[in-house]
Amino acid sequence: MKSIVNTSFLIFFFLFLFLVSQSAFAARKTINPQNPCKRMVLYYHDLLLNANGTDVDNSTSAAVTNPTKLGNYVFGKLIVFDDPVTLDENLHSPPVAKAQGIYVYDMKTDFTTWFAYSLIFNSTEHKGTLNIVGADLMMEKTRDFSVVGGTGDFFMARGIATITTQAFEGIKYFRLKMDIKLYECY
Amino acid sequence: MKSIVNTSFLIFFFLFLFLVSQSAFAARKTINPQNPCKRMVLYYHDLLLNANGTDVDNSTSAAVTNPTKLGNYVFGKLIVFDDPVTLDENLHSPPVAKAQGIYVYDMKTDFTTWFAYSLIFNSTEHKGTLNIVGADLMMEKTRDFSVVGGTGDFFMARGIATITTQAFEGIKYFRLKMDIKLYECY
Amino acid sequence: MKSIVNTSFLIFFFLFLFLVSQSAFAARKTINPQNPCKRMVLYYHDLLLNANGTDVDNSTSAAVTNPTKLGNYVFGKLIVFDDPVTLDENLHSPPVAKAQGIYVYDMKTDFTTWFAYSLIFNSTEHKGTLNIVGADLMMEKTRDFSVVGGTGDFFMARGIATITTQAFEGIKYFRLKMDIKLYECY
Repeated sequence: MKSIVNTSFLIFFFLFLFLVSQSAFAARKTINPQNPCKRMVLYYHDLLLNANGTDVDNSTSAAVTNPTKLGNYVFGKLIVFDDPVTLDENLHSPPVAKAQGIYVYDMKTDFTTWFAYSLIFNSTEHKGTLNIVGADLMMEKTRDFSVVGGTGDFFMARGIATITTQAFEGIKYFRLKMDIKLYECY
Repeated sequence: MKSIVNTSFLIFFFLFLFLVSQSAFAARKTINPQNPCKRMVLYYHDLLLNANGTDVDNSTSAAVTNPTKLGNYVFGKLIVFDDPVTLDENLHSPPVAKAQGIYVYDMKTDFTTWFAYSLIFNSTEHKGTLNIVGADLMMEKTRDFSVVGGTGDFFMARGIATITTQAFEGIKYFRLKMDIKLYECY
Repeated sequence: MKSIVNTSFLIFFFLFLFLVSQSAFAARKTINPQNPCKRMVLYYHDLLLNANGTDVDNSTSAAVTNPTKLGNYVFGKLIVFDDPVTLDENLHSPPVAKAQGIYVYDMKTDFTTWFAYSLIFNSTEHKGTLNIVGADLMMEKTRDFSVVGGTGDFFMARGIATITTQAFEGIKYFRLKMDIKLYECY
């Protein structure tokens, strides 16, 4: 008799757990920021073509619009890029990915940009893309972009790319450290 | 004897529930549109710089491309913005966030734009960003953008921003009500 | 006595399963690439306005920036589009959706573009939008974009759009097959 009581109790107990897990927890899953399912530290190098276009050979990005009159921080200047991405800080290291997309200066009172691009991997280690958007708030020591999707080896990935400016050599060159943490891996 | 039968049945029953919950329901989680895990109603104010650039002081956005010849609805005009976001309809209320990004007129037969931007919160209540993209179908009373990612307090968020045009004062000023509903919160 | 042992064992066994499913599996859900929850094959037609703007009537897209001097593949040319989307390859079939957004040529050494757009459905079958971004690596036979969000009938959707170039008639017209597979449906 006792075991039958226990059994009935168990049925309701686990049904309860199951239903709770499928409703409340569906929208509030547990993701621990300290525990990504995949992590990569990469370095992004941007080499901007000058206004005369005389340094085509070693440039990897170019402005396609002119700054507007809004403020003094080249507001509205939109840059298209095809930038190398390396595993260490050295611009001349073999690229493990390309970053292709756009950024645009979009702040009236300081230098700040908005990025939207794909990281395109085509190496023995990784094939596929990560699609990334975010505000590059340069006044912050680090800032976060959103990894909004992935393909190939990164099928359906989501995550965060934490950005740090590592070098800023005038308007010609800057380097970003991208600490990419994926929290949805499939 | 009876209890052993029950026990075996229970094992298979819950294993079945568990497997179902991890396969079918993984791709078809339950999200109730009426029950976001976080909701915010915000107001976005766009003050477009005029063609001569004479109203720099109280402008927060500027066109960076010219309209094309496709149709009569400024098709191709791309605007970069650094717009204040407030908790009520008053443009002069203290902003609780900035909206930074782009919109572009992209319809041949009517006024319609495509938006891609970050909402940047830096207040006592919220720190972090929400990244948003979507079609602003102005002919509809309300339309929905996708919140495709978030950072900081909005770590890994996803959701919907329901947009309503509240004011449209010529080309100079418009105000959007953004009813932001997050369905993935972490 | 035996049944009580079994019962205690069961409690811990299912509690263990439950906890595992809520932590580890939360970030590594099971999505089978072969088993989308929704699939649609659509055809995207791009009809680019010529430089003189003389073919306005049957054009659906237009360049808003000029190519830069970076390479020989119109690097930096940004196109805004309002393109018809059909259920078969015929440009003149009744459109089931519009594709509105931008693409930009962004490779120094080959023709490659980056896309960001909304698919806008307004038919008896579907109402709502899908928001899509991705690298259109034209040198690949197929390539994948990310479906980063959805609204209306596609509320909170995520997935992959596999792209194939089907026709490329000079600079004036190209057609993309978009095999859209949603893996998160609500």
